[in-house]
Amino acid sequence: MRQSKLFTKTRNTAPKDAVSASHKYLIQGGFADMLMAGVYTYLPLGYRVIKNISNIIREEMDKTGAQEMLMPALQPKGIWDETGRWESLEEIMYQFKDRSGKDAGLGATHEEVIYDIVRRNINSYKDLPFAIYQIQNKFRNELRAKGGLMRGREFMMKDLYSFHISQEDLDEYYNEMINVYKRVYERCGLEAKVVEASGGVFTKKYSHEFQIIAEAGEDDIIYCTKCDFAQNTEIAKSKAGDACPKCGENLKQGKSIEAGNIFQFGDQYAKDMNGYASNKDGEKKPIFMASYGIGISRLVATIVEIYNDDKGIIWPESVAPFKAHLISLNKNEEAEVIYDKLVKAGVDVLYDDRDSSAGEKFSDADLLGIPYRLVISKKTGDQIEVKKRNEENSEILSIDEVMGLIQK
Amino acid sequence: MRQSKLFTKTRNTAPKDAVSASHKYLIQGGFADMLMAGVYTYLPLGYRVIKNISNIIREEMDKTGAQEMLMPALQPKGIWDETGRWESLEEIMYQFKDRSGKDAGLGATHEEVIYDIVRRNINSYKDLPFAIYQIQNKFRNELRAKGGLMRGREFMMKDLYSFHISQEDLDEYYNEMINVYKRVYERCGLEAKVVEASGGVFTKKYSHEFQIIAEAGEDDIIYCTKCDFAQNTEIAKSKAGDACPKCGENLKQGKSIEAGNIFQFGDQYAKDMNGYASNKDGEKKPIFMASYGIGISRLVATIVEIYNDDKGIIWPESVAPFKAHLISLNKNEEAEVIYDKLVKAGVDVLYDDRDSSAGEKFSDADLLGIPYRLVISKKTGDQIEVKKRNEENSEILSIDEVMGLIQK
Repeated sequence: MRQSKLFTKTRNTAPKDAVSASHKYLIQGGFADMLMAGVYTYLPLGYRVIKNISNIIREEMDKTGAQEMLMPALQPKGIWDETGRWESLEEIMYQFKDRSGKDAGLGATHEEVIYDIVRRNINSYKDLPFAIYQIQNKFRNELRAKGGLMRGREFMMKDLYSFHISQEDLDEYYNEMINVYKRVYERCGLEAKVVEASGGVFTKKYSHEFQIIAEAGEDDIIYCTKCDFAQNTEIAKSKAGDACPKCGENLKQGKSIEAGNIFQFGDQYAKDMNGYASNKDGEKKPIFMASYGIGISRLVATIVEIYNDDKGIIWPESVAPFKAHLISLNKNEEAEVIYDKLVKAGVDVLYDDRDSSAGEKFSDADLLGIPYRLVISKKTGDQIEVKKRNEENSEILSIDEVMGLIQK
Repeated sequence: MRQSKLFTKTRNTAPKDAVSASHKYLIQGGFADMLMAGVYTYLPLGYRVIKNISNIIREEMDKTGAQEMLMPALQPKGIWDETGRWESLEEIMYQFKDRSGKDAGLGATHEEVIYDIVRRNINSYKDLPFAIYQIQNKFRNELRAKGGLMRGREFMMKDLYSFHISQEDLDEYYNEMINVYKRVYERCGLEAKVVEASGGVFTKKYSHEFQIIAEAGEDDIIYCTKCDFAQNTEIAKSKAGDACPKCGENLKQGKSIEAGNIFQFGDQYAKDMNGYASNKDGEKKPIFMASYGIGISRLVATIVEIYNDDKGIIWPESVAPFKAHLISLNKNEEAEVIYDKLVKAGVDVLYDDRDSSAGEKFSDADLLGIPYRLVISKKTGDQIEVKKRNEENSEILSIDEVMGLIQK
């Protein structure tokens, strides 16, 4: 794509209230635009990152046999009354009356909606287990929403729900999903710690969080650097410096980002919403449920928190909005030829064809953080100066060598 | 995909209030599920259709150079006050107060949001023209919502917005987009009439609707069968039987489905929201806008209205949830081999591996409406009985012949 056609512009100044790198750079780079506190437009560059992350998640969820569907944001009070959560989530759920005077709310999560569908469709153990997921915007009526894409009033989420004929079957799937989640984060360039936590306002049962150690995080966890022991401080009995209960190593404490969480509801919904299926012996058994969330827009911000320097973002290749950033310094004819070649070879390339100074083009490239910077100038002749965003040194390569490097 | 793993079930009975074929069959087939009046979950089968239509739309929009992004549903009152539409759309827009006491609404459309972004990013004719689009759920506070996916309180839409330095440039793009829209409908198997209409509650300027002649339609249009003359009866001066003002042929009148509409806002938003750019001579000129909508969930219903018979849906291949429906009648070993072959060849196939009667499998296949029905039974030996959903006769073919037919 030609940068001259990208309607958004980079900005020199960060938002006044921005304290984190992700908040600063995502706004300055034109990835996101604030409409109101906690509510953002994903601009073309940011939406490309969102799509890349969504596709990684889809691939991993589909591999498990989960089916994608899409539930509504608008929800009636009735189903929420069955579980008592209309009242218990009152603080964080948008609730209002529609024109006909009926109570409606915006989905902060979707257990009630999916369980209502499941109880009307599932009668037998033969239909179990199965899992469904969706990628969709969620809404939370936060009193204060700060921190850019990190904590939104409206935010994008992947939520998966699994259903089982027994607690044992649920446990097996739940543990398998922990590994699927780790793979998702790994493919996004992140190392996630699996952290034991309480169920918060969502459930009294236990839950697991996927935490990324980062300065900008709002969470506080106790973790071991040698083994996989990790607990949220809200439930941890140990503190920093204590011996790890699993391996004896000194424990650490850190401000951390919660980049996902999974909940065991067990038979709670079966009891509240009357969801039963017959087992092999024809006996009526509760349909067990667990749910599994990843905040996709928050993940965009999390990746930037981990991958940045004082000049801007350094996107991992797997989620970058473009693979290569082609910059022409007054050598437009040669650049056009190379741009055509890259496009024809199927390389996602952003081509800075603007009538701007070299300094402006280079600082924009650093801010946008596309993995491969390709410069065409008088110095390069019919070759290309290639620099990776995460490396200091550049090298001069032929177009064929560049193709080989990028498509590797 | 194995039908035994599809968690939704077909239903024998239609919803009580269903009068149209699309409402009846989309619910009975397990494509959509009603959560409250006008609010539906797109179940796995339905979401596959939604994705196919979305991809056709994306391809056609991308070809024009338009960029995809995603705007929020939650919106502050402020920007809507600038155009006076907070008040004029009050009837159909969900409006409420958030926890901090501020007025917020749910997007019924997105002109205010996008124009606010554009006025902060565009200063010069050099940045114009350009177009952006999104695929996203819209919300309308309908007093009564009937008719399944045809009229929703929450519904999926593609909305595109184009920006121009002059009315002439807008006109050129607008006329080009009429052809792009026709191509979208054509690819979905529909013949759309381009109909002159008023701007409704959205604008005082004129608009065009894309109407599909169908019994279930709520709209009433006057049209010519010989030339392209067509007007919504709300503005038409002619009536059925009158001579067409363009070609003299007798005009017809019909109950019709509005499957898309495009609006010219001209310089209305420039004036209301103060959006100006400098032209070639350095003069300050209004940034002109037009908007272009297609209701995607309504399009699903529209396609079903056109493509159905008394047994169920007959999906056009371009949007069908699966290309082939493989049915095994107690010949599971052979069917497994053929299923594997189809999956490996990349054919989207639904495999009815359930322990059900032949009658149940055939009536489900007719209801679901997948284009190619492939039956394996004692009668077929190592071959396959192939029947197209829209044809009466079947033929016995080898697996290679079936592959050739389906992948044609």
